[in-house]
Amino acid sequence: MAMTTIKAEAHVLEGGKVAARSRNCALTIDEPHGPEGAATGMNPAEALLCSLGACQSIAARAYAPQFQVKLDDFRVEIEGDIDPDGLFDQADGRPGYAEVRYTFRIKTDSPIERVEQFVKFLESRCPIGDTIAGPVRMKLQGIVIEE
Amino acid sequence: MAMTTIKAEAHVLEGGKVAARSRNCALTIDEPHGPEGAATGMNPAEALLCSLGACQSIAARAYAPQFQVKLDDFRVEIEGDIDPDGLFDQADGRPGYAEVRYTFRIKTDSPIERVEQFVKFLESRCPIGDTIAGPVRMKLQGIVIEE
Repeated sequence: MAMTTIKAEAHVLEGGKVAARSRNCALTIDEPHGPEGAATGMNPAEALLCSLGACQSIAARAYAPQFQVKLDDFRVEIEGDIDPDGLFDQADGRPGYAEVRYTFRIKTDSPIERVEQFVKFLESRCPIGDTIAGPVRMKLQGIVIEE
Repeated sequence: MAMTTIKAEAHVLEGGKVAARSRNCALTIDEPHGPEGAATGMNPAEALLCSLGACQSIAARAYAPQFQVKLDDFRVEIEGDIDPDGLFDQADGRPGYAEVRYTFRIKTDSPIERVEQFVKFLESRCPIGDTIAGPVRMKLQGIVIEE
């Protein structure tokens, strides 16, 4: 099993929005502020669901031929339940997603049995789906106090 | 525990890149193609790490005052190990992240003991960190065959 290490960084800016980047790609992540809910980008929980849907979509596109499924169009709708007060509400269960659901919308004339088999593959082998569904070792490498 | 439901969708476009969106925010996710590795956006595994770093950053900014930590600057560096062939390589372990590591770079003159206590809070209560670290229920709501 040849592992690859993926890297990213995040930097919180004035006003609380976050400049994140990985490789040469930038992503602005923000949290709606106050009752008006203005934000300049999606929040982390939204970005996580987008990452999942994109991973399922890229896997679908790449592996449909191996399942002899012809994809004329492929969309995923994702939703997840989270307690918005969970971050500080230590008494009340976990701060993260309690459940994540998805619906695949597929334009195809391939037989439904084959489509179902293909979807089973997507569900079980999607890297982001697996990362969310199963436990992952998380490790603090260090706290660096900058000058 | 008052749950909120977060929604997103992903649509795979010509050429294999993915238009993802949540609320009124768009995000293009793409996978480097071929040995040249050209891509028009970060890939799903990179977006996931950005989501984590952003969540830790937003939580840091929001909760530092409660820990009496003065944040003059806050950055996170994140890295994760993943098997790039894991998607189809069913014999060889999981397709998702095996481990995720992070380093906090903090500009502060607050006492290190207080900073460490604050970091413990960030580690244990970050919603995205918790989603990745712990198991999450995942559910296929349906396969819709479009006309």
